[in-house]
Amino acid sequence: MTEKAKLIAPRLPRGFEDRTPGEIAAVGAMIDTIRKVYERYGFDPVETPLLELTETLGKFLPDTDRPNAGVFSLQDDDEQWMSLRYDLTAPLARYFAENFETLPKPYRSYRQGYVFRNEKPGPGRFRQFMQFDADTVGAGGPEADAEMYMMVADVMDELGLKGQYVVKVNNRKVLDGVLDTAGITSDGQKLTVLRAIDKLDKFGPEGVKLLLGAGRKDESGDFTKGAGLTPAQIEPILAYVDSGVPAPGVEKGSNAHVIATINTLAGLIGGSEAGLQGLQELASIFGLISAAGFSGRVILDPSVVRGLEYYTGPVFEVELTFKVQNEKGQDVVFGAVGSGGRYDGLIARFRREPVPATGCSIGVSRLAHALKLTGNLKATEPVGPVVVLVMDKDQMAGYQAMVVELRKAGIRAEMFLGNTKNFGKQVSYADKRNSPAVIIEGSQERDQGIIQIKDLIAGKEAAAAITDNAEWKAARPGQFEVKRGDLVAAIQKLLSEQ
Amino acid sequence: MTEKAKLIAPRLPRGFEDRTPGEIAAVGAMIDTIRKVYERYGFDPVETPLLELTETLGKFLPDTDRPNAGVFSLQDDDEQWMSLRYDLTAPLARYFAENFETLPKPYRSYRQGYVFRNEKPGPGRFRQFMQFDADTVGAGGPEADAEMYMMVADVMDELGLKGQYVVKVNNRKVLDGVLDTAGITSDGQKLTVLRAIDKLDKFGPEGVKLLLGAGRKDESGDFTKGAGLTPAQIEPILAYVDSGVPAPGVEKGSNAHVIATINTLAGLIGGSEAGLQGLQELASIFGLISAAGFSGRVILDPSVVRGLEYYTGPVFEVELTFKVQNEKGQDVVFGAVGSGGRYDGLIARFRREPVPATGCSIGVSRLAHALKLTGNLKATEPVGPVVVLVMDKDQMAGYQAMVVELRKAGIRAEMFLGNTKNFGKQVSYADKRNSPAVIIEGSQERDQGIIQIKDLIAGKEAAAAITDNAEWKAARPGQFEVKRGDLVAAIQKLLSEQ
Repeated sequence: MTEKAKLIAPRLPRGFEDRTPGEIAAVGAMIDTIRKVYERYGFDPVETPLLELTETLGKFLPDTDRPNAGVFSLQDDDEQWMSLRYDLTAPLARYFAENFETLPKPYRSYRQGYVFRNEKPGPGRFRQFMQFDADTVGAGGPEADAEMYMMVADVMDELGLKGQYVVKVNNRKVLDGVLDTAGITSDGQKLTVLRAIDKLDKFGPEGVKLLLGAGRKDESGDFTKGAGLTPAQIEPILAYVDSGVPAPGVEKGSNAHVIATINTLAGLIGGSEAGLQGLQELASIFGLISAAGFSGRVILDPSVVRGLEYYTGPVFEVELTFKVQNEKGQDVVFGAVGSGGRYDGLIARFRREPVPATGCSIGVSRLAHALKLTGNLKATEPVGPVVVLVMDKDQMAGYQAMVVELRKAGIRAEMFLGNTKNFGKQVSYADKRNSPAVIIEGSQERDQGIIQIKDLIAGKEAAAAITDNAEWKAARPGQFEVKRGDLVAAIQKLLSEQ
Repeated sequence: MTEKAKLIAPRLPRGFEDRTPGEIAAVGAMIDTIRKVYERYGFDPVETPLLELTETLGKFLPDTDRPNAGVFSLQDDDEQWMSLRYDLTAPLARYFAENFETLPKPYRSYRQGYVFRNEKPGPGRFRQFMQFDADTVGAGGPEADAEMYMMVADVMDELGLKGQYVVKVNNRKVLDGVLDTAGITSDGQKLTVLRAIDKLDKFGPEGVKLLLGAGRKDESGDFTKGAGLTPAQIEPILAYVDSGVPAPGVEKGSNAHVIATINTLAGLIGGSEAGLQGLQELASIFGLISAAGFSGRVILDPSVVRGLEYYTGPVFEVELTFKVQNEKGQDVVFGAVGSGGRYDGLIARFRREPVPATGCSIGVSRLAHALKLTGNLKATEPVGPVVVLVMDKDQMAGYQAMVVELRKAGIRAEMFLGNTKNFGKQVSYADKRNSPAVIIEGSQERDQGIIQIKDLIAGKEAAAAITDNAEWKAARPGQFEVKRGDLVAAIQKLLSEQ
């Protein structure tokens, strides 16, 4: 084999990405904002590992057609199956059950970190992405749910999105009531209906209708099998999906709108007990939302059902209300940047007694992607270090001494460590690093006990044209000299003025 | 199957752990400190994903006996092999090669995050742990290495470990010179020798001698095959390992000690060119270290070789110099909490031209564990939220209004969301959450337009004994009443006084 054939292509697996300094700073600021709001609401942090036992996590992802689909799993040396967490809820259920005796109850925690999905990646759709969750475990009342919606709304406000989002709330129990009344009782069929409704944004009411019936063929000719319902069964479901649309003259999100929607739903649930309970919970939730002044920011929308199997009651999505342009310049609806709901059954996998729980999840990576598309992600490049140029190879200790002095004063600084033969390369390196200044000490300066300081911000444009030492010394854009002993003071002054 | 049989045990895979609020805060503070030092030294952040293509990562872990040992690998839906990163260096090599055209050169970056090892876990030895690395890629001179050692020393100082650590430096090339001269030339044999020397701390010189010869049987009777060297070959290697021990009257880490060690080593490398080059590099490095005032904190120690295969020149370890007690109360040497070295060959896997590189890695999890054992980890529990107690179930909106007011003023607050029948449980919940105060508004208070505030810090001891409402009202430890409208002002005053 030749040397050439052995070279490995440096690349990432599809659906994974690297993050640059600007993105890291921007996402870090987002995380700090979310954390502050969650803490103000009374949640404390906890962190679980990225790998869990496969059995412990379970699998509650939407795509159940393929066995093991959606989850990255592997066997360790002991032949135990482990999986990378696919969300931050399943690990919390494990954590709460494992530490049941010592945790305060209700247990209120937040968690932030990466989750993984073994799915086909696409634009803005990654296989590793960041979520930031909060959950209240051991609280069954609607006030625990209402609090989540207010908190997510406050998060969006503090991220600078005031007036540009809506938190859409619904209750799975109401849909259960509609389905009971329509004679749809098998879990499998219910789930298919749920996922058909979940596609409303994507395919519209006509597409949902096809998915509830025989099935739907997409543009590429692929056919998705439907739920196989009769027209008499489909009708109340479509009426249900449509029930959140306000009548003419009714303001969307107003109390009147909430009351009208609940009344319409009451007519669709027939005598279903689950449905009635669901409506009562929604009424309580929106009473609290209204009293706390969150009407309009948090609205009732029966079409929100969420694809995750483990939700048992109220569910929500937070959606951005503006359109964004994708990479191809097309206007697209961005979809949910956060979601959550009540999952009273999840902890029962570990403990006999029922443990009610409700939570919310902000899709940090998705939200960052949306902010990036709209130009709202403040991704500023870091200010670079002061670079001490290497003019004489045998004076390393002296250049290094300057760097040490600057660092001791808390100033970012480094000595140029690359190939020092080309003076212009050293200056363009400093430029590329976004450096505020370079320090120059040749033998002449050293003999005089001075140094040259070149202000790169002031002289940036001129500097680009300079390629050698002689030309530099003639032009000296933004350059000045100080005594060697005044190095730190001069740089401090320069930085404070830039 | 009965319901009982179906319950899943809530547990983590071995070698993984959850992190509590106090630990998260303490590690967060450590990370901030390290980040500040790395940035001051001129490094900018970058972040790579946790999974990489297996081929891209390569495998350079010490344990080569088992195929694929040490790394967690899995196949995705496209049948591509991917691995969880086992360090932060291999992904950096991929990142640099992939972005070669656009990155400034030298490329100076830091990275922080979890890495994974598919190894047998033990006390303080986890399969997911955090590292914080910095690397300079494209700089071949010893000043790039010397800078790493100074930076790591500054990190240790700023973590509060002044005088309690030492950065031990060596050069692989010197050992290569010794081995060349002893006639040990095969890569496999060299690696076995390297790993034998790496066990010096664990087994002492006698153990190393056995591992260089026929092999070593441990206390449990397990036999490790040795390098199979002749006594004539073993002798110079043991002399090499011993060469860093200072002569009587010579201060360890002093310039005199460095010079004496280099002289001893010069006698062991024979005419080896690699060995000579290695000694010249060490002389340059310690010249810079001395000039920058880091002597004693950074010392020359030929016994440091590091187990990782990809190092090609100078290597280092940072060790805590105090002993720590393990979980069994035994005094143990904690070992390295950071390490690194020069790896000039790693990027050549992707690109034809040679790219010199050097880096350092702080074992954040290991260091946190060491600080925890010595009681130096400042793991303070967070101050909890103000808890508004629920005295009347039908007044939820009113209690929630108090919470909303407090949160708007930036105060951590929540309404009690659990079972509200038992008053004592609400108070002990607040206590367990480390709450500064609870707010009480029964019907009597509501009628009078007042609320009761109970200072939990002042009344903590007394509160433990109280179990019901009547008893509470009689005792009222640390309790006072204010007008409902003065809620926020009263809590602000209470918090500022606590």
